Amino acid sequence: MERIESHASFGGTQEVWRHRSHVLGCDMRLGVYLPPQAAEGPCPVLYWLSGLTCTEQNFITKAGAQEHAARHGLILVAPDTSPRGEGVPDADGYDIGLGAGFYVDATRAPWSSHYRMHSYVANELPPLVEGHFPAGGARAISGHSMGGHGALVLALRHPGRYRSVSAFSPIVAPSRVPWGEKALGEYLGEPREAWAAWDACELVRAPRAERLPIRVDQGEADEFLATQLRPELLEAACRDSGHPLQLLRRPGYDHSYYFVASFIGEHIAFHAAALNVNAAAS
Amino acid sequence: MERIESHASFGGTQEVWRHRSHVLGCDMRLGVYLPPQAAEGPCPVLYWLSGLTCTEQNFITKAGAQEHAARHGLILVAPDTSPRGEGVPDADGYDIGLGAGFYVDATRAPWSSHYRMHSYVANELPPLVEGHFPAGGARAISGHSMGGHGALVLALRHPGRYRSVSAFSPIVAPSRVPWGEKALGEYLGEPREAWAAWDACELVRAPRAERLPIRVDQGEADEFLATQLRPELLEAACRDSGHPLQLLRRPGYDHSYYFVASFIGEHIAFHAAALNVNAAAS
Repeated sequence: MERIESHASFGGTQEVWRHRSHVLGCDMRLGVYLPPQAAEGPCPVLYWLSGLTCTEQNFITKAGAQEHAARHGLILVAPDTSPRGEGVPDADGYDIGLGAGFYVDATRAPWSSHYRMHSYVANELPPLVEGHFPAGGARAISGHSMGGHGALVLALRHPGRYRSVSAFSPIVAPSRVPWGEKALGEYLGEPREAWAAWDACELVRAPRAERLPIRVDQGEADEFLATQLRPELLEAACRDSGHPLQLLRRPGYDHSYYFVASFIGEHIAFHAAALNVNAAAS
Repeated sequence: MERIESHASFGGTQEVWRHRSHVLGCDMRLGVYLPPQAAEGPCPVLYWLSGLTCTEQNFITKAGAQEHAARHGLILVAPDTSPRGEGVPDADGYDIGLGAGFYVDATRAPWSSHYRMHSYVANELPPLVEGHFPAGGARAISGHSMGGHGALVLALRHPGRYRSVSAFSPIVAPSRVPWGEKALGEYLGEPREAWAAWDACELVRAPRAERLPIRVDQGEADEFLATQLRPELLEAACRDSGHPLQLLRRPGYDHSYYFVASFIGEHIAFHAAALNVNAAAS
C-alpha cells in the first residue's frame, strides 16, 4: 500500500492509495476518507462503487460526501471501476473494458484474465481496508448507475456482509437493458442463464434467508431512465418477492453528480443508522 | 446568452451559460447556481473567482457550495479565469495566458487585445447577471488563490460595489511573489508603479473612504504558503492601515478544493449575513 494523495477535509483526511491487487492482477487506486473519529478508534466503512467512465476520483472530488462522513464517523472507500494498466484488455467504447468493469467476475476471454471486480470488492478489499485503516468490521455499500448495480448485487449475493445497501440511479436489470446486455454478453457470454447471478431483479426474486432493505434514489429527469435504468423492474421484483424497497423518485434531477451530491447526506445518514453510529454534534 | 448545461441541485439549478463578452472580445462560459428561492423573487449574488488553470467548472463541481447557497438563498456566479477561443493569445506555462488572466486589465501587447478580466467581472458581469437572472443588486465576492487576489482587488478598487469580500488562500501581494511578478510583468510591464493598483496589500495601505472587512482562510499545509501567498504581508498592511481583517489559519489544510469545500459553508454564511439574507429553515 502506497499513499499517493492526502488532503485535510472536514477535520479528517481524504487519501488516495495505490496497491497491488492479486485478484485483478494489476495495481489499483483506492480513495479512502478517514473521518476525524478514525483518530480515536475503529469506524465502520461505507463502500462506494462508481459508474461508467469513472475512476476513484469522481466520487471523492464531486459528491461532497466527506462532510457527512465526518459528521457520522464513517470511513468512505471508493475503488476504481475496472482493472487498469499494462496487459489489461480494453475495447472501443466507454461501456466495456477500462472504466466499465460492471462489478462482475468475467468468464470469457480476453476479459477473464483481469476483470474480476466482484471478487475484488467482495473479498480483497475488506481485509485490505480493515488491515490498513482504523476500520471496524461493520460495512455498508452504495453506488451510482453501474456502481448502483454493483452495490445491489454485492449486497444480495453476500448476505450478512453489509448492514445496509443503497443506490443512486442504478442499473437494476442488466439482463434487460442495452448497457447490461452488452457488458454481460462480453464478460460472461452464453448461456444467458448465467446472467441471473449478476442481475439485482433476478437476485431479489430468488428465495433468500436475508431481506436487507434497499434504498434507491432516482432522478426523474435522468436521461437514461427509460432505456438503461428502469427502476419499475426492481419495484415489481421487490413487490412480488416481498423484498423491502424504498424507491425515491426525485423530480427534475438528472444522472449527474449534482444529483448524487444533493442526496448523499440522506444516504450517509441512512447507512449510519444501520451501522449504529451516533452522529457527533454537528 | 445561451444555456449549455442545466442540472437540478439542492432544490435549485446549476447552470452553465455561454455569452459574447464585448469587454473580452470572445465567447465566455459562466457557471450560475440559482437557489430554490430564486423561483420566488430576486436573490443577492455571490461572485466566485477561481484560481490558475481553472475554468468555470472547477468551483461548480468540486466546492460543494450549492448546498449552502440553497440554504441562504444566494445566487452563485462563477466565471472562467481568462478569455478563450480563436485569436486569444496564449503562452507556454500554466501561469500566464489561458486560465491565468489574473483579473487585471492588460496594457501590454499581445495581452491587451483580450485580457481585461477586471473590467469583465467589475463592469460587464453585473448588468448581464442582473438582466438575465432573478438577481437583486446586492453583491458579494470571493475566490481562491489567483481568484482570491481577484476578489480582494475588485472589492478594494470598487467601494460600494460589494457588501462583503472573502478569499481562500489568496495571492495577497502579487508585486512581491513569483506568480504575480510574472503575470504583472507580462500583462502590465514597466513601470512597476502601475502594479500597485492590482496589489491588495498596496490597495489596503492607500487612504480609503470604505474599510470593508476582509475574511481570509489559509491552510497551513498549503504548498504555496511561503512562496506565493504570504498572508503575513496582508496582515501587516491591514494592521498598519487599520483595515479590518479576519485571517483564519487552518492547520493541516492544503491548497486544493478539499480545503475550499471544508470551509465554503462558513464563507457563504459570512456573505449571507452581510447581504442580510435570512437562512431558510435547513
